[in-house]
Amino acid sequence: MQTPTDTDASHSEAQFEAQIRAAIDGKTKPVGALGGIETLAVQIAQIQKSLTPRADTCRLTIFAADHGMATAGVSAFPQDVTRQMVLNFLSEGAAANVFARSVGASVRVVDAGVAGQLIDHPGLIPRRIAAGTANAIERPAMTPSEHAAALSSGSALGHEGDEAVACLGEMGIGNTSSASLVAAKILGVPVADLTGRGTGLDDDDLRRKCELLEKAANRTNDKLEAGLALQEYGGFEIAMMAGAMIGAAASGKIVIVDGFIATVAALAAEAISPDCRKNMIFAHQSAEAGHGRVLAALKAKPLLHLGMRLGEGTGALLAFPLVKAAAAMLREMASFESAGVSGPA
Amino acid sequence: MQTPTDTDASHSEAQFEAQIRAAIDGKTKPVGALGGIETLAVQIAQIQKSLTPRADTCRLTIFAADHGMATAGVSAFPQDVTRQMVLNFLSEGAAANVFARSVGASVRVVDAGVAGQLIDHPGLIPRRIAAGTANAIERPAMTPSEHAAALSSGSALGHEGDEAVACLGEMGIGNTSSASLVAAKILGVPVADLTGRGTGLDDDDLRRKCELLEKAANRTNDKLEAGLALQEYGGFEIAMMAGAMIGAAASGKIVIVDGFIATVAALAAEAISPDCRKNMIFAHQSAEAGHGRVLAALKAKPLLHLGMRLGEGTGALLAFPLVKAAAAMLREMASFESAGVSGPA
Repeated sequence: MQTPTDTDASHSEAQFEAQIRAAIDGKTKPVGALGGIETLAVQIAQIQKSLTPRADTCRLTIFAADHGMATAGVSAFPQDVTRQMVLNFLSEGAAANVFARSVGASVRVVDAGVAGQLIDHPGLIPRRIAAGTANAIERPAMTPSEHAAALSSGSALGHEGDEAVACLGEMGIGNTSSASLVAAKILGVPVADLTGRGTGLDDDDLRRKCELLEKAANRTNDKLEAGLALQEYGGFEIAMMAGAMIGAAASGKIVIVDGFIATVAALAAEAISPDCRKNMIFAHQSAEAGHGRVLAALKAKPLLHLGMRLGEGTGALLAFPLVKAAAAMLREMASFESAGVSGPA
Repeated sequence: MQTPTDTDASHSEAQFEAQIRAAIDGKTKPVGALGGIETLAVQIAQIQKSLTPRADTCRLTIFAADHGMATAGVSAFPQDVTRQMVLNFLSEGAAANVFARSVGASVRVVDAGVAGQLIDHPGLIPRRIAAGTANAIERPAMTPSEHAAALSSGSALGHEGDEAVACLGEMGIGNTSSASLVAAKILGVPVADLTGRGTGLDDDDLRRKCELLEKAANRTNDKLEAGLALQEYGGFEIAMMAGAMIGAAASGKIVIVDGFIATVAALAAEAISPDCRKNMIFAHQSAEAGHGRVLAALKAKPLLHLGMRLGEGTGALLAFPLVKAAAAMLREMASFESAGVSGPA
């Protein structure tokens, strides 16, 4: 049963949505002719509570962390690559940096828990929870207090800044395995259903990865509450990204969710704080097995289908121009009335 | 049989493609992880014959013209809307203008044959062939000399300018009907297979449109050579756009092909001058019935699937940031070697 306040709120939300749709239908174009861009514009107007929304400022935050599991052979790449890629982000040579420059977004890089020595670099935001998670095949990836620290650091980072659009990305060798386990436990499905080739495993390696993930999954109940799933199997970067989604949404930002791993963070974020879902735009459907299933659980329709599987927020950055254009359409486009154009006969 | 020169040329093309692929595979990302963006980067490098391509300048050309057929009831909108929308483009209020500003492209508007009095505006490029085509339901839409003039004006406009990327769009009430007929005749398929709702017909109107297009199609042979198909059924804006695609490709530009009508122009352009095909990038698959079939005939895989059906080059503009990012990836991204990142174990 709804309380009177709920009814009032949903009535006024419905009224505002009708206003948005009327504004879009009054633009100089056939009704519905901008398809998915119109759907985006409605969502952006709702997030910003404005009929003249703006989405022209964008920042990507990349969360990097290591996984105890990685040393067991779940990835094609050695664990050192996490640290090396952090340095690559900081010298602006990675795909995420190139795409950010190309679309006009800024980038910040967060150490959520990279293994080895602390990286000393003025451009890196130090939020290291520990030097990588524990090996989740054998034991919980993080302690309850580590989990809480990752979520709250993420939430604080999500609140920071006044950009209209927050893109969130990740780097962490082994984190497709971690994401598969977290999602399987939140959804209560066999981990094999959500296990894929990550950044490039062959058939033998994929078989081995499936065995390891089965073993990890068998440690706990088939279905876990989202916070517990993150604690048992999550990476620090996944938990921190979930926190950042919650924080960014709470501060009114549009949140563009990247690929498989970011979508699993979004699944956890929604379970922890359902309100954040309405601020999320899903960038793309990646080539990673299982991504479609997690998107479906979130009732998410991704914007792009480019067969990408890189992470780092690269897909989110490529979706940003669509988000920016959708807001501009609602804010700047002439109406039939203002332009003196005739409607359908 | 290939002549020795053909063999040499295709050998050196194959060598260059191998160089491009090696450059992309050396970037700091798993092989193939950028999916469709890598495919785009290969094509852009081939167009520009460069391993450090650039695609950061973009201009949209909108070709506007009227159709004798429009007065017979093939569109939901009155014919006046073509002229009104030209004025809307010139005062920068249309969707195409908004998207162009949003993605950083410039816009020029060409009068290819708008009905009524000449539009006197300093921003409009006057290339009017006639005040609209003849009614193609009853007789050829244009004379042979009008057809030749449209193609050659288009080609000259395509050659102009030094932008890296040419987006081509159109405006013309009734031009989905014209495009359906042109494509049906080039492909030799029944026009009903390529007939859809255009900018918004209901069921009764669609039935009537199908009858009219059948009548128009029955005037000529089932299959026509592309030039003749344009002459019999084309709009001036479609023929001029085909010419512009040929001219833009010949001058080394990347050509982004918009929706259904632009794709039909691309089909004609390829038939007239096969070389231009390799410069074409297909922006999106529109909601218009028949677009998929024409794309398939061109072996084209469109970048976006947003259910758009507006024209004006709006889809091409939204694809431009992907093209720009793909070129930047190849030009700017660090290699495993330059960044000191380890490859797969």
